[in-house]
Amino acid sequence: MIENQIGQEMHKWAQDLFPICRSITGPGVRETLRYLKNILPKLEIIEVPSGSKVFDWEIPNEWSIEDAYVEDEDGNRVIDFADNNLHVVNYSEPVDTWLSLSELEEKLYTLPDQPNAIPYITSYYNRSWGFCMADDEKQKLKEGKYHAVIKSTLEPGFLTYGELVIPGNSKKEILLSTYICHPSMANNELSGPVVATALARWISMLDNREHTYRVVFVPETIGAIAFLSQNLEGLKENVVAGYVLSCVGDNRAYSFLPSRKGQSYPDRVARHVLKHFAPEYTEYTFLERGSDERQYCSPGVDLPVASIMRSKYGTYPEYHTSLDDLELVTPEGLQGAFNILQNCLKIMEVNGFYRTTKPCEPQLGKYGLYPSVGVKKRNQHIRNTINILAYADGELDLVGLAENIDLFASDCVPIIESLEKENLIELVE
Amino acid sequence: MIENQIGQEMHKWAQDLFPICRSITGPGVRETLRYLKNILPKLEIIEVPSGSKVFDWEIPNEWSIEDAYVEDEDGNRVIDFADNNLHVVNYSEPVDTWLSLSELEEKLYTLPDQPNAIPYITSYYNRSWGFCMADDEKQKLKEGKYHAVIKSTLEPGFLTYGELVIPGNSKKEILLSTYICHPSMANNELSGPVVATALARWISMLDNREHTYRVVFVPETIGAIAFLSQNLEGLKENVVAGYVLSCVGDNRAYSFLPSRKGQSYPDRVARHVLKHFAPEYTEYTFLERGSDERQYCSPGVDLPVASIMRSKYGTYPEYHTSLDDLELVTPEGLQGAFNILQNCLKIMEVNGFYRTTKPCEPQLGKYGLYPSVGVKKRNQHIRNTINILAYADGELDLVGLAENIDLFASDCVPIIESLEKENLIELVE
Amino acid sequence: MIENQIGQEMHKWAQDLFPICRSITGPGVRETLRYLKNILPKLEIIEVPSGSKVFDWEIPNEWSIEDAYVEDEDGNRVIDFADNNLHVVNYSEPVDTWLSLSELEEKLYTLPDQPNAIPYITSYYNRSWGFCMADDEKQKLKEGKYHAVIKSTLEPGFLTYGELVIPGNSKKEILLSTYICHPSMANNELSGPVVATALARWISMLDNREHTYRVVFVPETIGAIAFLSQNLEGLKENVVAGYVLSCVGDNRAYSFLPSRKGQSYPDRVARHVLKHFAPEYTEYTFLERGSDERQYCSPGVDLPVASIMRSKYGTYPEYHTSLDDLELVTPEGLQGAFNILQNCLKIMEVNGFYRTTKPCEPQLGKYGLYPSVGVKKRNQHIRNTINILAYADGELDLVGLAENIDLFASDCVPIIESLEKENLIELVE
Repeated sequence: MIENQIGQEMHKWAQDLFPICRSITGPGVRETLRYLKNILPKLEIIEVPSGSKVFDWEIPNEWSIEDAYVEDEDGNRVIDFADNNLHVVNYSEPVDTWLSLSELEEKLYTLPDQPNAIPYITSYYNRSWGFCMADDEKQKLKEGKYHAVIKSTLEPGFLTYGELVIPGNSKKEILLSTYICHPSMANNELSGPVVATALARWISMLDNREHTYRVVFVPETIGAIAFLSQNLEGLKENVVAGYVLSCVGDNRAYSFLPSRKGQSYPDRVARHVLKHFAPEYTEYTFLERGSDERQYCSPGVDLPVASIMRSKYGTYPEYHTSLDDLELVTPEGLQGAFNILQNCLKIMEVNGFYRTTKPCEPQLGKYGLYPSVGVKKRNQHIRNTINILAYADGELDLVGLAENIDLFASDCVPIIESLEKENLIELVE
Repeated sequence: MIENQIGQEMHKWAQDLFPICRSITGPGVRETLRYLKNILPKLEIIEVPSGSKVFDWEIPNEWSIEDAYVEDEDGNRVIDFADNNLHVVNYSEPVDTWLSLSELEEKLYTLPDQPNAIPYITSYYNRSWGFCMADDEKQKLKEGKYHAVIKSTLEPGFLTYGELVIPGNSKKEILLSTYICHPSMANNELSGPVVATALARWISMLDNREHTYRVVFVPETIGAIAFLSQNLEGLKENVVAGYVLSCVGDNRAYSFLPSRKGQSYPDRVARHVLKHFAPEYTEYTFLERGSDERQYCSPGVDLPVASIMRSKYGTYPEYHTSLDDLELVTPEGLQGAFNILQNCLKIMEVNGFYRTTKPCEPQLGKYGLYPSVGVKKRNQHIRNTINILAYADGELDLVGLAENIDLFASDCVPIIESLEKENLIELVE
Repeated sequence: MIENQIGQEMHKWAQDLFPICRSITGPGVRETLRYLKNILPKLEIIEVPSGSKVFDWEIPNEWSIEDAYVEDEDGNRVIDFADNNLHVVNYSEPVDTWLSLSELEEKLYTLPDQPNAIPYITSYYNRSWGFCMADDEKQKLKEGKYHAVIKSTLEPGFLTYGELVIPGNSKKEILLSTYICHPSMANNELSGPVVATALARWISMLDNREHTYRVVFVPETIGAIAFLSQNLEGLKENVVAGYVLSCVGDNRAYSFLPSRKGQSYPDRVARHVLKHFAPEYTEYTFLERGSDERQYCSPGVDLPVASIMRSKYGTYPEYHTSLDDLELVTPEGLQGAFNILQNCLKIMEVNGFYRTTKPCEPQLGKYGLYPSVGVKKRNQHIRNTINILAYADGELDLVGLAENIDLFASDCVPIIESLEKENLIELVE
């Protein structure tokens, strides 16, 4: 098997999607979803009309942008949207005007501390316009007249999101949510959709799914709110666990941000998996949240949703700039996040409350599970078998059982299966 | 505003009250209460007759003292009650007798380790008499005959205590209790009554009190027991929180002593306020209790009563000696204790369980509470607003909510009020 | 009183029992039980026939051994069971055969890292045979023919165990369990039976037992399982606490291994006693279990059973070798374990939930329990009395009460008795 095979594939998808100018509405979102639908044919694309009430919010007008630039008096484009879609303040209203340098500077955003980075700026709910650029470039601008042009529209249309439901044996649902509303950025944008897509493809191929899976690709905040407003009752009834996928692409760190109360089911599973595969991971608190767990864990929604990340948003220098690109995000980084999340889902698929069927330890030797000659050093496999039997009291789920005996839950599974075959253990719930 | 204005005023009251010879019964208690009634006109003065049964105790005879001294053969007063009322063992029976120096010495109490301090000694329930003096002075006594005179009476009378009930919207009651039974001492006596008086005056002036307040000035132990025996049923029904005010006058420390189980409502509020204003405070355990929380928290009473102090009784060298005076107790010290307690009461007045009214985060921008242009550094006020909304699940009271989001409860109040005005949050309990 | 008097006596018993070749069945077990029955005349000896089903197990054939040796060609015994019964693999089937040195070596067990120690090896459930010897001795064996002889039988018979029930006022039962299935070893064999015997003798002599005691001497694992299979219902109904006695004889350490969930009644009592008498004790987790708590705490049995030890099995170098002898186990070591366990039982005998009878502190002076002259330094006895009264809320048992006030439970007992006499405290449960 090729190293990081799925990581390579995900990285390729991210390269394809990188140039698209996404926002919370508009053609960029649709184009992104169409690309993903090629991989996930059953992905449904939902359109919510502008003006729709979604809880406390209203779907805004749809934003579309064709071109944007700033020219000097000689017609040289000193800023060009065609070079990088971060150059325009996202959701800028149309403009076509001449300004002096000092007037122009009031419409420019830069990062003096990161002079080679174009910042990512938005103005969704205040009509406004502006340009973003590297501070180094700004310093080169000379006195004179500048022609600022933004060929955008802000008109009634739709907010678009994608939803894929993969049915399972049970109505119990696992929710995966990621966002598709940032322009050309990689860790804090494309890593989420591509890892969600790879997970969804893997889930779809499972022979016998215990859970139903709901994978959503939503514009952050307003999209999650729109999705929730259309599905709240069913989600509250069925969702047993969920993860927000954000910043899952670099390979500098593993991060975890639990649900509001910090002890929900996906919290317990995520910590168990991270402790096993990335014991050095950083645990943040819900106070440090920043993506759609803000909506999923809000008091009136209160779904069990946690967030597993690589380098968390806001903690790495390239965040929300043009430096958050596909060199920062790597096949290894994507594959690592995929593996952690896949392991969480695998554990949830087999999780349950196990109980021994008989009082006292069984005579494992009878079942070919126990060596009859006692030597000082016991085989670790036998120790694990005995420990599973000793703690399987029907009050601990697989994760609790595994934690009690200092094992990884997935490593308990084959032992439990062999004990189930001999009727020494049974699932009670 | 004058610095420590209330502290200055409280210190003045303490100066006025300092010379009075208080005990657990007698004219000194009455005189003290009359003085406080001038400030708190609605203070009721309750008299409990000697011989009354109060739970396991009986109100003793009333003690009154007119004069006491020891003269040498030449009529020189070597000890004089007129100089300092600590010179006589509190509750001494009358005596008029001549003794040799060695006989006298058996009736003298000194502190060899603090040779300039007169100790404070009592003998309430054993008929006895004696004198207290500085060890330095005792060393100067020469061989010879001494005339010991105590002009006291121990006769049927009353135990006296003061009680002020300040009604509020609710029958839910907050109890403040302090003691008025020690003679001329300051931290371990007058600090309590003067801080309680200033708090009662402030409470009385509040426009709209949520709670009923009961402020009691009782002789320690027997007075608290008498008060409890007359009011137990009502107190158990109504008291939601209480504080014992003892040693609230110096400015060397802040101390906290929780109720017996350590997690009662006043414990939680006190810790929250102390953490904010005096994070270096010392927390004692209920094993180190020593004042009337002994009665309030006794198993058969079990009121939620904690104790906030400056330097705790028994922990400072001047305790129970003539050195515990009004240089030790300062306006700053009194003001500090007043502030902490006032903040606890302020929080209790507005405390409640808040819940958001809508699923998901509201669109704060609509309400003028949220900036529409996203920049990297978010305003802390907005963060606090969002955090309050994110944690207001109706299961946390204001203190719990504040602790969860690392804020001071009182700082949450204006934000909650602005959210209530927009119907974004509501009080559920 | 002689120092370690009971320890000396227990050590003498262990010397008498040391040479017997015990196993999980057979004459060695019976001989051991007969010896103990001389000390405990009411000890019942139970025989369970071979082939009986006991939960998942079947009682094996009975093993009996008369002689075993290996001779060289000249008739010199190079290994002789008569020298040490560890020389033969326990439960070896009969054999009479000639082998080359290399063939013989396949049947020999030694410990190269402990070249002077004979290892202890068993093969209960696989028919097999073998010899154990010091590695030093093995190295001396020369090329040649060897005659290996084991005069054993493995035939239908019985598994034998001992059970002593000492009735008390209540049906509530305390279980003590120890094992009698190892040949000549001391800490990991005889220490348990002799300490259990001394405790049983002491319990039998108590005037007024609150609990019923059940003391069992069982072959480890299969014997405990047989005992449980015959008594499970009654044990589950009546047993409130139990201890497994294993490795209670050396004086290098105190060890504690709690029940599965770690917070059962015997866990709490054992920790309280160990903290008082041996605060340096080592606490292991249930994951490190190894004796019959494996059966007593198995999910289908789930009795509250913990294990108090000196040096725990598996943690000391002499474990499961001929070096685990009666020099390692000392009178002091046995006495220390006896004392800890005796104290646990003493506390359980008087344990209960106490509550004060009156609100507020009582006037202790009335009862001759309180000095009426208040001096700075309070008597510790009075402090303890007041603390007991302050915490006796009917919700804490004696151990909980004692832990709350930083006292040893047994030191609370005389104070509680004096308070009960004055009707100041009462037992509520």
